[in-house]
Amino acid sequence: MPDLYNIAVVGATGAVGGVMLKLLEERRFPVASIRPLASARSAGQSVPFAGEEIEVLELTHDSFADIDIALFSAGGARSKEFAPAAVEAGAVVIDNSSAFRMEPNVPLVVPEVNPGDIKWHEGIIANPNCSTIQMVVALKPIYDAVGIDRIIVTTFQSVSGTGKSAMEELFSQSEAVLESGEIECNVYPHQIAFNVLPQIEHFHDDGYTNEEVKMINETRKIFGDPQLRVTATCARVPVFTGHSESVNIRTTRPVSVEEVRRLMLSATGVTLVDDPDNLIYPMPIAAAGCDDVMVGRIRADESGENSLNLWVVSDNLRKGAATNAVQIAELLVGTGVLE
Amino acid sequence: MPDLYNIAVVGATGAVGGVMLKLLEERRFPVASIRPLASARSAGQSVPFAGEEIEVLELTHDSFADIDIALFSAGGARSKEFAPAAVEAGAVVIDNSSAFRMEPNVPLVVPEVNPGDIKWHEGIIANPNCSTIQMVVALKPIYDAVGIDRIIVTTFQSVSGTGKSAMEELFSQSEAVLESGEIECNVYPHQIAFNVLPQIEHFHDDGYTNEEVKMINETRKIFGDPQLRVTATCARVPVFTGHSESVNIRTTRPVSVEEVRRLMLSATGVTLVDDPDNLIYPMPIAAAGCDDVMVGRIRADESGENSLNLWVVSDNLRKGAATNAVQIAELLVGTGVLE
Repeated sequence: MPDLYNIAVVGATGAVGGVMLKLLEERRFPVASIRPLASARSAGQSVPFAGEEIEVLELTHDSFADIDIALFSAGGARSKEFAPAAVEAGAVVIDNSSAFRMEPNVPLVVPEVNPGDIKWHEGIIANPNCSTIQMVVALKPIYDAVGIDRIIVTTFQSVSGTGKSAMEELFSQSEAVLESGEIECNVYPHQIAFNVLPQIEHFHDDGYTNEEVKMINETRKIFGDPQLRVTATCARVPVFTGHSESVNIRTTRPVSVEEVRRLMLSATGVTLVDDPDNLIYPMPIAAAGCDDVMVGRIRADESGENSLNLWVVSDNLRKGAATNAVQIAELLVGTGVLE
Repeated sequence: MPDLYNIAVVGATGAVGGVMLKLLEERRFPVASIRPLASARSAGQSVPFAGEEIEVLELTHDSFADIDIALFSAGGARSKEFAPAAVEAGAVVIDNSSAFRMEPNVPLVVPEVNPGDIKWHEGIIANPNCSTIQMVVALKPIYDAVGIDRIIVTTFQSVSGTGKSAMEELFSQSEAVLESGEIECNVYPHQIAFNVLPQIEHFHDDGYTNEEVKMINETRKIFGDPQLRVTATCARVPVFTGHSESVNIRTTRPVSVEEVRRLMLSATGVTLVDDPDNLIYPMPIAAAGCDDVMVGRIRADESGENSLNLWVVSDNLRKGAATNAVQIAELLVGTGVLE
């Protein structure tokens, strides 16, 4: 095992790719070399890393010679096409797309929840959906201490989860509304500025969106609990960065709000932000730029047995995507799984 | 009983008061005279009604001589101070504040749900909270046909529920964010532009906000079902007008999504907006200006017995406030309850 690693970042010019590069530097990942990769359109641009500007190369099947770890965040289609080539070349792929998440031979890993699952990877490790990651990090301490039987979640998701073009669309549509100008919709089917869209990704036949189906299935896979009862309603809100979630859970035995607060205080990757007297609670603008998942508004739900309400907020580009991927890379090198 | 009525609108220069005046005209309420009332600060302004500009008078204890119906929407403190004077003067008060809603001798009325309750008024009829109204209108057909046992609701509430000053704050903060200017918070404790605030009104000792407590208690009172299990999480989103709600319910017997769709199609005050194939679902910008409650995204929730998810959107200034109040006035004159 080398002491330093050659890292490829696929989608290096995208919203998540940019944060991945920043985090590799911030968290002092043992980098021997960085190879930023992107589509032909973006090749030739440069991206900053450790005080240097590094040229972005075109992503091809031959991009992965000598790469130890390839961080993919360029959409499912590119992952499907190029991840096998990276594995073939000897790299371990950490894939932020949904392409491989539910494959039985691909671990779906949140380091605070199921770190051990990286051991059985066969070349690809999947990074879960942003809204799933922050929820399972918040629920893990409760799941372990008292058990969770059912989850009913409603999300308030920011546009950066869709990418840079969606952030630009929210910006330009907001300007148009404030100046009584004309609204153009290119990224989303309807206006997102000053609106709420109860649709994230395409619809399935049962009326659920793909994002909702992902939250249900991925939560079960990460907890290794195929019977876990989960339902989700996912909505897009006019926020640039930071997903918020209203989470209602039923635990398998009674647990007090005070006990849940204590669990959160000692949990890894969680910050308790729950001081109503001082009007302090998790909010997307406060979570942006933070790696931890913020949990607050913890309340007993008297309408159901052993039920609780929580409010969970996280930076979807960080813990919901780039931070989790880099943490998986850290696990790989720290636990000797990378050979 | 006269054929035409003298109507006072208290809070006539506010966001809801303005819509009340518009609706009295739009719905051809049998108006003999309109008396717009407001604080001394706003007295002397004029408000439009039926093609005329009517002078706003200062609200005093002597404002209600000859008034048949007084529509109050000027906050709880003014209702508490002036509603008794209006009743004393012989008017029936329809109060949009929370001041009297839970008083046992004050009916809390949504005309589609519990119209009969107006009969036992003693001078004051309360108009429920905006987020409660739209939820009970959407749930009433299911409640009647199959029974509802539990409600878990998460709201996405627009700023117009707070009033005109909050709409101005969202506008000016949004401009400041887009132009990298300085954010000023006067109405809300934190920035609302491009953010989500999981707080509406003050906190109670159990961690619930007053808005959440209102949704729980008012829903039970309107349905006349003190045992109904309800929990709520209420959040403010950067939307000018239109509240959205993610509603999870458990019914007392199984009901199919198709049956719920049919119930919505034949329900009064509800428009079914549920065509995922064509990306059609309720959204606040589409509901603004409509009197009906929009219901969509109706899905079976397989995580619980007899459970369903719905997405409910309504114009909080209309059905959530002014429309419901004017409908109560229509009930009063139409059913001969007004003497």
